[in-house]
Amino acid sequence: MANTFGHLFRITTWGESHGGGVGVVVDGCPPRLALSEADIQPDLDRRRPGQSKIVTPRKETDTVQILSGTFEGLTLGTPIAMWVKNEDARSEAYSEMATKFRPSHADYTYQAKYGIRAWPGGGRSSARETIGRVAAGAVAKKLLRERFGVEILACVSQVQNLQAAVNPETLQLSAVESNIVRCPDAAVAAQMIQLIEQRRAEGDSVGGIVLGVARGVPPGWGEPVFDRLEADLGKAMLSLPASKGFDIGSGFNAIRLTGREHNDAFRNVGGRVRTLTNRSGGVQGGISNGETIYFRVAFKPVATIMHEQETVDAQFQNTTLKGRGRHDPCVLPRAVPMVEAMTALVLADHALRHRAQCG
Amino acid sequence: MANTFGHLFRITTWGESHGGGVGVVVDGCPPRLALSEADIQPDLDRRRPGQSKIVTPRKETDTVQILSGTFEGLTLGTPIAMWVKNEDARSEAYSEMATKFRPSHADYTYQAKYGIRAWPGGGRSSARETIGRVAAGAVAKKLLRERFGVEILACVSQVQNLQAAVNPETLQLSAVESNIVRCPDAAVAAQMIQLIEQRRAEGDSVGGIVLGVARGVPPGWGEPVFDRLEADLGKAMLSLPASKGFDIGSGFNAIRLTGREHNDAFRNVGGRVRTLTNRSGGVQGGISNGETIYFRVAFKPVATIMHEQETVDAQFQNTTLKGRGRHDPCVLPRAVPMVEAMTALVLADHALRHRAQCG
Amino acid sequence: MANTFGHLFRITTWGESHGGGVGVVVDGCPPRLALSEADIQPDLDRRRPGQSKIVTPRKETDTVQILSGTFEGLTLGTPIAMWVKNEDARSEAYSEMATKFRPSHADYTYQAKYGIRAWPGGGRSSARETIGRVAAGAVAKKLLRERFGVEILACVSQVQNLQAAVNPETLQLSAVESNIVRCPDAAVAAQMIQLIEQRRAEGDSVGGIVLGVARGVPPGWGEPVFDRLEADLGKAMLSLPASKGFDIGSGFNAIRLTGREHNDAFRNVGGRVRTLTNRSGGVQGGISNGETIYFRVAFKPVATIMHEQETVDAQFQNTTLKGRGRHDPCVLPRAVPMVEAMTALVLADHALRHRAQCG
Amino acid sequence: MANTFGHLFRITTWGESHGGGVGVVVDGCPPRLALSEADIQPDLDRRRPGQSKIVTPRKETDTVQILSGTFEGLTLGTPIAMWVKNEDARSEAYSEMATKFRPSHADYTYQAKYGIRAWPGGGRSSARETIGRVAAGAVAKKLLRERFGVEILACVSQVQNLQAAVNPETLQLSAVESNIVRCPDAAVAAQMIQLIEQRRAEGDSVGGIVLGVARGVPPGWGEPVFDRLEADLGKAMLSLPASKGFDIGSGFNAIRLTGREHNDAFRNVGGRVRTLTNRSGGVQGGISNGETIYFRVAFKPVATIMHEQETVDAQFQNTTLKGRGRHDPCVLPRAVPMVEAMTALVLADHALRHRAQCG
Repeated sequence: MANTFGHLFRITTWGESHGGGVGVVVDGCPPRLALSEADIQPDLDRRRPGQSKIVTPRKETDTVQILSGTFEGLTLGTPIAMWVKNEDARSEAYSEMATKFRPSHADYTYQAKYGIRAWPGGGRSSARETIGRVAAGAVAKKLLRERFGVEILACVSQVQNLQAAVNPETLQLSAVESNIVRCPDAAVAAQMIQLIEQRRAEGDSVGGIVLGVARGVPPGWGEPVFDRLEADLGKAMLSLPASKGFDIGSGFNAIRLTGREHNDAFRNVGGRVRTLTNRSGGVQGGISNGETIYFRVAFKPVATIMHEQETVDAQFQNTTLKGRGRHDPCVLPRAVPMVEAMTALVLADHALRHRAQCG
Repeated sequence: MANTFGHLFRITTWGESHGGGVGVVVDGCPPRLALSEADIQPDLDRRRPGQSKIVTPRKETDTVQILSGTFEGLTLGTPIAMWVKNEDARSEAYSEMATKFRPSHADYTYQAKYGIRAWPGGGRSSARETIGRVAAGAVAKKLLRERFGVEILACVSQVQNLQAAVNPETLQLSAVESNIVRCPDAAVAAQMIQLIEQRRAEGDSVGGIVLGVARGVPPGWGEPVFDRLEADLGKAMLSLPASKGFDIGSGFNAIRLTGREHNDAFRNVGGRVRTLTNRSGGVQGGISNGETIYFRVAFKPVATIMHEQETVDAQFQNTTLKGRGRHDPCVLPRAVPMVEAMTALVLADHALRHRAQCG
Repeated sequence: MANTFGHLFRITTWGESHGGGVGVVVDGCPPRLALSEADIQPDLDRRRPGQSKIVTPRKETDTVQILSGTFEGLTLGTPIAMWVKNEDARSEAYSEMATKFRPSHADYTYQAKYGIRAWPGGGRSSARETIGRVAAGAVAKKLLRERFGVEILACVSQVQNLQAAVNPETLQLSAVESNIVRCPDAAVAAQMIQLIEQRRAEGDSVGGIVLGVARGVPPGWGEPVFDRLEADLGKAMLSLPASKGFDIGSGFNAIRLTGREHNDAFRNVGGRVRTLTNRSGGVQGGISNGETIYFRVAFKPVATIMHEQETVDAQFQNTTLKGRGRHDPCVLPRAVPMVEAMTALVLADHALRHRAQCG
Repeated sequence: MANTFGHLFRITTWGESHGGGVGVVVDGCPPRLALSEADIQPDLDRRRPGQSKIVTPRKETDTVQILSGTFEGLTLGTPIAMWVKNEDARSEAYSEMATKFRPSHADYTYQAKYGIRAWPGGGRSSARETIGRVAAGAVAKKLLRERFGVEILACVSQVQNLQAAVNPETLQLSAVESNIVRCPDAAVAAQMIQLIEQRRAEGDSVGGIVLGVARGVPPGWGEPVFDRLEADLGKAMLSLPASKGFDIGSGFNAIRLTGREHNDAFRNVGGRVRTLTNRSGGVQGGISNGETIYFRVAFKPVATIMHEQETVDAQFQNTTLKGRGRHDPCVLPRAVPMVEAMTALVLADHALRHRAQCG
């Protein structure tokens, strides 16, 4: 529970923003998968702060080290421990964060729950925790690709009111990585970047949508009734910092259609059962139907802004707090590898679960 | 996994649409809670088909029986087994459902996964499975109300394009139950009912939104990092049949605001830490902050319609299928007790989890 | 937890001695296994009270009913719910058990834990709870036999000081079932029966040892480091009522040997890796090595005796209590199917777990 | 599963004998417990090889580092990651272990299961894995002592045929630590040491018994029906390397007594319910009864001996193998802190579980 995700392909993350480091233990990975740090580091680099002008400038190299679970370049079937040392432990001996709760952050709720919190950098609630997820997700992506032929992708599809048209069937990683906002629609991407820079100049921030895609999932993954694919994907995405919503396939837009307009007709296409449309988003009754899985994740605007805001202090007295220092106007480009990672973790788990019961 | 939900307040449901019955085992309920069938039956009656003209006419009394876990009217701390016998096992000796996959149902995916399926009534994928959830949810609601002072509510807030204005702070059960569509806004409810009747007449169906509300949750429930309240609520809701989306607080609407517009300022109100707005939906960093929790669940239009549709048969040959018999144009009124139940199950679990670690 | 056992082949039992019934939900069973009540009932009959003169005369037919999870005689992959109705709910309106704690029973500890207990028949702590285990174990045994070629057996090998010589390699069910004490050594069995009858005549009771055996387990089942086969088998056996000890292979006798005397040498026998001796009991490093798995379970003498004993009442006042009514001098013959069931549950779970990670 | 133990106080260990290191993540520890490396290191020193002349001379300082989960000397309620770097990675470029399976070790079964193994030092099956357990156990012991008044102890009570008389009620840590074999009976301890030295001189090894004790556990911990205290303790102990058996209270000796001889009479002693004898070992019906919990763990003789033994190589060809280098004639003194750690982990978990459901 709590800091563990998955049942058969299962990860446990640990670490605070300013402690010794952050890391993850991956348990249940099948043996004999070729794996080294070179398979992990690229996704950590995509997640890293400071990679472009539109994300937080926090400077960390975030170099991953595999501590266990591999031998001569292959996984052993034993726990894969990976970690990244914390480097940017800036002296914050005096910080308003120690005594005031940042609005729409987790400072107050951690204090209310535990009676203590690691205030520097947000402690456990820092997005730095997602390093462990992204590292583990890189393993899951490799497993899915090499053993099951499944491809995982994600991209930014909306920033505030700027919407890109993205086709889950044809989305390519190269298009995602072709610009710093990770939106495959070049024209809209340019507008998004401009908008984010404007918000940064205003000391403000934006939210938006990340689209997640899984292609090549065979029919039959996902377990009724509680561990439906969409339920596990939803939980995975809603466990990401700043996420506020999730929908799959037609999602919230489904409600404007009638059943007649919405249903996906089945057809035999080349000997395989296909649906003519894919409003189901690749999942029916909680189980994959062989079509492309796609879903949206809504991220709220970043809570840290460079404006004075009303809040209370540790003694619950009214006060104000103004963000200072590093300002991250938009988490979306960095959320893309997080969404990929969580998608891969859900699917790797269900791949093994399906094999266990029906293999 | 799979058919079990929750960690400390934990349920396992079982049963197919046309087998011996459907039921649930509730494990982990605290002892000495007054409990009898009279606490369970009302919610089952609200979930039951045939309760009004706008839902499916399937005739079942759905009378619950408690088989274990209580003694002299009090819970024992041991598993509470409850079940409802299947009564409506109509002879369907000849049925197209045995040989054809209903579009946008789970027939094909169950067959693909298991190589077998209980086709009568949809088997395990039937909404009848939710009887166990609703029964267990009634126990959880009682526990939350009597031991923790928490109130759970839900209502229909949208049918296709008809949107009601509902205030989570003031929503009352009596208003929800004042009409058959379970929308507290009487004027919009009347329109909704009219729309649903029209769709039924057309042999078609509608979807919409159920709003879920939890009031009185103290600060501190929910566990970072994976078992955030919103993640567990999201999973719970997305495990309901026909659900396609979930968002909490400002949700998908958050993305149109800037951080400055979106943040919830803290204020000391009468000695308690409160937020002036509640775009967070009562949860920050995955942990309750003492404000009202509210969220939306999107349900697609019912897949069974009275029109001929393209599909394939068990041999993957193209064919058509026309719905016949019972027609449920709108699942939303019956989804209201389901959403309440799943909300209660998540919160009862987290109430116990919080007490375990921080109590 | 608590009332659930197993991870992938997973059971949840419910029921008190005198409530509506006792039952089990089996989740995770692979689909398309032929299954009907006829596969379950024989083991329940072997577990049933009143089957011979040396066990408790409680009269119950214990007729099992499968409520879900099968269709046309095959498992569906969905939860298999099974139950046995309680019939022997004798009026015990006045019973000393309601107000006094039976020595070496669970009356006091249940009361201390929960502040309430179902005193008739011992409630949840009654051996009647094992009906669910035995029913589920029958499914697991069938799965292991038909899909994995694994055979599960158990027998009584010791009653008080009477020890039988049993060879795990050659033990046969027919020999076990050839006498009412379920000891394959006919000569010792006769002495055991005589001893048990003598103890019954004295109003006293006996304990002993049940030997468990699994043959045909391939190399590779079991998971380091916590879910070693012997750890999971040990937990399974120690969760049975009245069990006090468990050892595997050489077990407690291993400590008298030196390493040189104890080690099992490896040899290539017909192309397979075998051990010349089997002091390891078929498990090395927590993982099966292909040899026969065998272990011992120690059961204490039955706590209910027909003598006056010192105890306290519900107000913690000193008093005495004398057993009356049904007297079960020896639980061992009925424990044999329980040990088989728990063995099968552990191995079925690990069979699926192995397939998931390494399949 | 597998590398995770516990439900609410939950640990995940990782690491191979010769990889980057070994470690543990402790999840679920309550917040605001004073904790630093100084609380952990002493138990690691007791577990460490090379601490005396009768255990393995492998030279490792095993210095623990806490990487997360504490802030200013207090636990945060977040995961506590701890690790020990591997230092003794001696070049074993040429080793027979790479190509031959050591008898009664886990080399063959790991290879059979995973198709790969980290042969240096035994990889994951090395006793080095228990570093994580002992570190986590030190946290659990502190929690139990400071928050629940529970004391955990263990000692060596038998080496081969040399049996010490140990009273669980009066056992003291100082007596355990007064000699290198960790047996509180000084006279027998001297004999044990002499025997172990003799076996070492012979290139052979011994096994024996470790007694585990928990004092001060209140009535009510432990959960029927599967997670009985003795079941969870049994699993914990049987998950330790080289353990072959477990019994609690009267254990295997119970079987020689009749029920009349064996039952523990209840008496009111100073207002508390006590038992006059404690053959139950502090647990009845799976739940603690307030008496001292005590149990025995049987360890087989160490498998590595300095004699040539028959075995097979990686190609399953018959060959021989002779142990060389470091020789550990007796694991028992080092097993004492392991037994303490596992006992503490089980009880900390059940302390929280009891509080969750009945608190």
